[in-house]
Amino acid sequence: MAEKALIVGTGIGLSASLARLFRKDGMEVALASRNPDKNTALAEETGALNLACDAADIASVDALFKTLDENFGVPDVVVYNPSARVRGPVTEIDPEMVRDAIMVTCYGGFLVAQQAARRMEARGSGTILFTGASAGVKGYPNSSSFAMGKFGLRGLCQSLARELQPKNIHIAHFVIDGAIVIEGRPWPADKPEDSRLEPDAIAETYLHVHRQHRSAWTWEIELRPWVETF
Amino acid sequence: MAEKALIVGTGIGLSASLARLFRKDGMEVALASRNPDKNTALAEETGALNLACDAADIASVDALFKTLDENFGVPDVVVYNPSARVRGPVTEIDPEMVRDAIMVTCYGGFLVAQQAARRMEARGSGTILFTGASAGVKGYPNSSSFAMGKFGLRGLCQSLARELQPKNIHIAHFVIDGAIVIEGRPWPADKPEDSRLEPDAIAETYLHVHRQHRSAWTWEIELRPWVETF
Amino acid sequence: MAEKALIVGTGIGLSASLARLFRKDGMEVALASRNPDKNTALAEETGALNLACDAADIASVDALFKTLDENFGVPDVVVYNPSARVRGPVTEIDPEMVRDAIMVTCYGGFLVAQQAARRMEARGSGTILFTGASAGVKGYPNSSSFAMGKFGLRGLCQSLARELQPKNIHIAHFVIDGAIVIEGRPWPADKPEDSRLEPDAIAETYLHVHRQHRSAWTWEIELRPWVETF
Amino acid sequence: MAEKALIVGTGIGLSASLARLFRKDGMEVALASRNPDKNTALAEETGALNLACDAADIASVDALFKTLDENFGVPDVVVYNPSARVRGPVTEIDPEMVRDAIMVTCYGGFLVAQQAARRMEARGSGTILFTGASAGVKGYPNSSSFAMGKFGLRGLCQSLARELQPKNIHIAHFVIDGAIVIEGRPWPADKPEDSRLEPDAIAETYLHVHRQHRSAWTWEIELRPWVETF
Repeated sequence: MAEKALIVGTGIGLSASLARLFRKDGMEVALASRNPDKNTALAEETGALNLACDAADIASVDALFKTLDENFGVPDVVVYNPSARVRGPVTEIDPEMVRDAIMVTCYGGFLVAQQAARRMEARGSGTILFTGASAGVKGYPNSSSFAMGKFGLRGLCQSLARELQPKNIHIAHFVIDGAIVIEGRPWPADKPEDSRLEPDAIAETYLHVHRQHRSAWTWEIELRPWVETF
Repeated sequence: MAEKALIVGTGIGLSASLARLFRKDGMEVALASRNPDKNTALAEETGALNLACDAADIASVDALFKTLDENFGVPDVVVYNPSARVRGPVTEIDPEMVRDAIMVTCYGGFLVAQQAARRMEARGSGTILFTGASAGVKGYPNSSSFAMGKFGLRGLCQSLARELQPKNIHIAHFVIDGAIVIEGRPWPADKPEDSRLEPDAIAETYLHVHRQHRSAWTWEIELRPWVETF
Repeated sequence: MAEKALIVGTGIGLSASLARLFRKDGMEVALASRNPDKNTALAEETGALNLACDAADIASVDALFKTLDENFGVPDVVVYNPSARVRGPVTEIDPEMVRDAIMVTCYGGFLVAQQAARRMEARGSGTILFTGASAGVKGYPNSSSFAMGKFGLRGLCQSLARELQPKNIHIAHFVIDGAIVIEGRPWPADKPEDSRLEPDAIAETYLHVHRQHRSAWTWEIELRPWVETF
Repeated sequence: MAEKALIVGTGIGLSASLARLFRKDGMEVALASRNPDKNTALAEETGALNLACDAADIASVDALFKTLDENFGVPDVVVYNPSARVRGPVTEIDPEMVRDAIMVTCYGGFLVAQQAARRMEARGSGTILFTGASAGVKGYPNSSSFAMGKFGLRGLCQSLARELQPKNIHIAHFVIDGAIVIEGRPWPADKPEDSRLEPDAIAETYLHVHRQHRSAWTWEIELRPWVETF
């Protein structure tokens, strides 16, 4: 029977690469995002379910997993991509937008993990992959909202790794450090080749981590372009 | 003129030790907590303002600082202590309580820092100290809510350190690792002496960090009992 | 033309798994160790060069690479495995043995990286992989010699990643956390399945990292059994 | 009875500040360095013993502590300052100089700690403080020798903290991040005030950490100028 993958959030090109690679690898795919209309073509191309979900909303995440229970089954692998930030000095950014950004970047990961873990525990296996950022390991100036969200997400993942891996649920946190190639978004011509992350390349490592033998699991892995300073 | 200190949250004995030490060091003190009734005796003892504040609420934090503007002045040092957690497996904990715990532990720190930083920037100096926990540097199992809150708080502090220190505002994050002595709460008789953190001892290091010369500032410091495993 | 791999050190079963996997993947393999006699069967099985080298000795590492220049070519991938430790309280361990252990675990990695990097820079590409341990990210009691060696190795790798990756030389540090399965070495029957790292599983991730597209390189990755506490 | 302090290494001005502050605080001081002639004036000023020691040499460190046994007593606090580095690309630096630099920066710390810990364990108390650098937590390019030395030193300290603190020996590692003010060494006039670390300011924090109550010990602390980027 085919494995099943749930990809939450659109993730600047990464979700599309994951959907295609997982599909190519023989999995059935479900997509969940705030605006499923944006994913119509991708869903068609990959034969994916295309569902609406506000990842920061308890009822919406609950409804998503009930829909999956009825129409898809328990995912073997879940990927959590959503994030939001409010750029600017701490003295100037809007506190309501900051709260919303934390909810999407970090708390939504918790809500999705909670629903997924309940089902994976019952079945006895599963993988949950979280897309982090360098902002989750280093707090940059004028980036306090993203620092809270991505550090919080990393804390969640580390806690879940210790809690769920002994229950045969693989948890991994990917520290994406650098700009991701986005179709149609230009890049300075004088920058070196491959100086932005190719989403297809990122997806290869996500799949590798999902496929790791459980005697040698990774819970965290950084990915950055060869020329990226860090 | 006397320095002014604002201590937010009750912090299991730590706030009292800080209020007494800051007072002894010549500062004027203001206390802010959800239940100021609990602090009546302490406020009297230390001559402190005793104010009500829900640190996770935008309007309440705004009102606190307006009250200070009128009755106290701009604090030279602000300490943020509040935290909350929901203990238990990720599959079982209540998601609404988890959200509230993140708001108190992390987002409240942002709200208080935002108000404090606005005033300290205008004046050109200040210190903001945050009480973290080992849960902010290590994600423990069955502790996902606290991991999100305390990792998030640490991310906030690291971002603020990079952003505000060049504006002469000293930011520090204290990783408290271990149980704090609480009056009236017993401790197993067979445990070694000094195996819980004395709040007076913690307060000494908070004061030292506040007093550091700006050519040699600390942004993070761990404190743990001599016998604590880590 | 086939890629070439150099594996330095015997690494408790890991070197054998790497040699077999690299061979299966189409590479030519060279083995280097203090006692090449131990690797005779492996060399025969994988068609590998089987060379002697004391990795902590400047002249010996120099001679190894000169031999490779003449008989093998510039390696596309180099793996550094050797390590040594002196167990016991800091007050009791022999300081000469401690020095030798640092030399093997850390300084030998430098010597091998230096020779490899000279050749890879001249060619314009390459991969150098280092086998670290949890002792490189956490200093355990009664393990000061290993802490120095493995922290030092990690520092080397992080420095080399920043220095050499922009020259198209991929550097990666593997944090192996747990016991590795060793043929013939028993394991308590009551331990869960897969609670020791399978060297074949480790090798898969080494190969994956070597094969990563340079727009998404990993410089560090932890590997541990699903049930390992950390 | 007066406390006794041993300061090993000259440490670019820091040793002088420590000697003066410790003396002012009532301690008796012993200095140990490769060239005691440089410390004649300081020794006279602070009434310190002025001893020769090559910290990376087993016999020399052994002899130093035997001299102290006879003429000084067991130190209450030991500070380890020495470090050395070889600057340059990994492909170009001299491997013998690299080995020597690791010996001074890291292995010498082990030798001194071993001798000190034996005596402190016998007495039942003590403090050992190590001067680290940002190079011990971040591996910079063209700095592989310093990365090995300072990462290794940090690993040593973390191991010793876990091993010796429960024996009432306080271990602390100071991450000095930035340039230290050196008498007579100029600094660009356009740099902000206090943008180099004042050694007197550093010394204040060393003394504070030594004086911490054992219910709230710090094992690691960063110190950097307010305007330093990190």
